[in-house]
Amino acid sequence: MQYSGSSEPLALATLEAIIASIHDTADPAFEAALQRKLDHLTKPIGALGRLEALALQLGMIQKTLSPYLLKPAMLLFAADHGITAAGVSAYPKDVTWQMVENICSGGAAISVFCAQHDLDLTVVDAGVDHEFDAKQRRSLPLLDRKIGPGTADFSKQPAMTTEQCLAAIGLGIAESQVHLQAGANVLGFGEMGIGNTSSASMLSHLFTGIDLERCTGRGTGLSDIMMAHKHSVLKACLEHHLGCRPLTDDSDPEAALRLLQYFGGFEIAAMVGAMLTTARHGAVILVDGFIATAAFLVAQRLAPALRGYAVFCHSSNEQGHQPVLDWLKARPLLSLDLRLGEGTGCALAIPLLQSACAIMSQMASFDTASVSGPA
Amino acid sequence: MQYSGSSEPLALATLEAIIASIHDTADPAFEAALQRKLDHLTKPIGALGRLEALALQLGMIQKTLSPYLLKPAMLLFAADHGITAAGVSAYPKDVTWQMVENICSGGAAISVFCAQHDLDLTVVDAGVDHEFDAKQRRSLPLLDRKIGPGTADFSKQPAMTTEQCLAAIGLGIAESQVHLQAGANVLGFGEMGIGNTSSASMLSHLFTGIDLERCTGRGTGLSDIMMAHKHSVLKACLEHHLGCRPLTDDSDPEAALRLLQYFGGFEIAAMVGAMLTTARHGAVILVDGFIATAAFLVAQRLAPALRGYAVFCHSSNEQGHQPVLDWLKARPLLSLDLRLGEGTGCALAIPLLQSACAIMSQMASFDTASVSGPA
Repeated sequence: MQYSGSSEPLALATLEAIIASIHDTADPAFEAALQRKLDHLTKPIGALGRLEALALQLGMIQKTLSPYLLKPAMLLFAADHGITAAGVSAYPKDVTWQMVENICSGGAAISVFCAQHDLDLTVVDAGVDHEFDAKQRRSLPLLDRKIGPGTADFSKQPAMTTEQCLAAIGLGIAESQVHLQAGANVLGFGEMGIGNTSSASMLSHLFTGIDLERCTGRGTGLSDIMMAHKHSVLKACLEHHLGCRPLTDDSDPEAALRLLQYFGGFEIAAMVGAMLTTARHGAVILVDGFIATAAFLVAQRLAPALRGYAVFCHSSNEQGHQPVLDWLKARPLLSLDLRLGEGTGCALAIPLLQSACAIMSQMASFDTASVSGPA
Repeated sequence: MQYSGSSEPLALATLEAIIASIHDTADPAFEAALQRKLDHLTKPIGALGRLEALALQLGMIQKTLSPYLLKPAMLLFAADHGITAAGVSAYPKDVTWQMVENICSGGAAISVFCAQHDLDLTVVDAGVDHEFDAKQRRSLPLLDRKIGPGTADFSKQPAMTTEQCLAAIGLGIAESQVHLQAGANVLGFGEMGIGNTSSASMLSHLFTGIDLERCTGRGTGLSDIMMAHKHSVLKACLEHHLGCRPLTDDSDPEAALRLLQYFGGFEIAAMVGAMLTTARHGAVILVDGFIATAAFLVAQRLAPALRGYAVFCHSSNEQGHQPVLDWLKARPLLSLDLRLGEGTGCALAIPLLQSACAIMSQMASFDTASVSGPA
């Protein structure tokens, strides 16, 4: 099996160019025009609540008074994690490849929700420790983009080499570009990788400064004892990689990339690259749960203007998610106590984005409908 | 114009028969079977959170391991309120009929959301104080089922006569039966009626015992001064109708019906009849915001077994809604800060019900997908 060869090594300069070309969505004059349109629709001012805020955000991203969703797609990156050797997960590592097959066969939750909402789902093997049978018949194709046979165990060494980390980011850039260049204006990102809540906990702690303990949850369902073990493993990792301390306001981008390289995963780094590319193309980024939000923390640190493009879809039941959302001052559209990942929160939120677009393009205004305003 | 003639006067005995024939959904053995199925789907146990609880509830209502939505429909009842003469609303009363026309023309939020989700929307004039032009061309037909030209001003006399109240309940029974008998297994209920938050506040207070002040909100957008006025008007109504005190555990059904008659509205009484009939047919009741929840309070008081059929769709931004939801121990699926009514919360929640059904019928199980369980 060959690794890294399938995607071009990414020059740091390419990444920097993408980051530099992300426009800030802020535009007070245009925002006022959108608000005026919303205030003239046949409803009391503000009565559609967060759908109005969402419509406004989509309008700002697309610079139009009638935002719309074009070719919405889900990119699901799968990869294995060396940290599973430390016993941090309730499920065996093999579940990663088994679930990838299940997703491609249409039997996983994300497969079902994407079918329900007519979302184009692409499954990318970013580094699953399994030889998938290329001849296997699947409902969905599985893209072989392995960076390596899973990451290294970050309790002993950095999860990725610098080259691997850049290659994984590059993979996310390349796969998102396929959809963006074909006209997609909204992309959601999912992940599958047994052990990846451990990566997300480390990144959440290191990118926000929130206590590691608050950032550490039960993942797929750890018992109290396993949970205490997971926390002690992660805490020891911090000691092991001396110099890995939470970022400060004046930390440089290299420090952020180094933390991603040390504690991330191939699928998380791919999401970072994909999120940055999505914003660079002026498209909407759907942010799913705890893992995707960890990727967003990294991406936003590299490009603060990213924030305007992000729609937070679901507030996860995984313990670490809420504190990070609070830190981000983000209030996701849905709060359904999911703790599954796969991008399920993004898929479930799609109808709300469609509703936000629909009010802007289909509702009557007070003038056209001859409805009286307040007395 | 003729009133009450369009729907048969409802014998109290008919209502009692409907109430008596509502089956309790509880069935521990069947619930366990549903839970077993959920626990074998390819996801960690409980990882789909509230969608699992919803799937379980739908399965209990339909007594099937694979619940489904058939001909989902929205019934929107519109009526005027005499209490508007007391200056409790920010919008003039004419907005009721104007918005009815707008809904029927496809320009209101509920029209847009029903079109988005392919929901059959029926608009029923239960007593709007306006002569609609029967020859007007509308995208949706408007059913003329006027009980009267709006209710009486309940700051001076009961909103409805006993006969009107029963006729309005009967109207809800009849219109919901049309859909239920055609096979619909899920009905949502919307309302349009300037002034109806005042009715809902009174009913919320009287059916739960929560302070009237906490049950009184800004409706379509009252200023502080208007809000204080609204509260003082409603408080005086309590004094005026001596004997109208919050229900106690041993109040009889007649007391509940009397409160509905005194302070309700034609559209609210129609929703009460429609909700009871929906449960009686073993179908799902979608409960929208503050007004619909007030109707639900009345209906549940008449038939406590109703609760198992109710899916609370949206937690409204109208002040009185959250305390009532807490009292009901209900946590709606969505919390989008809407305060619009019309049934918009029900329509927006439909995709989540579809998702709950889809996981039961389309997800693979651990056995069939050959995915390993916890280590």
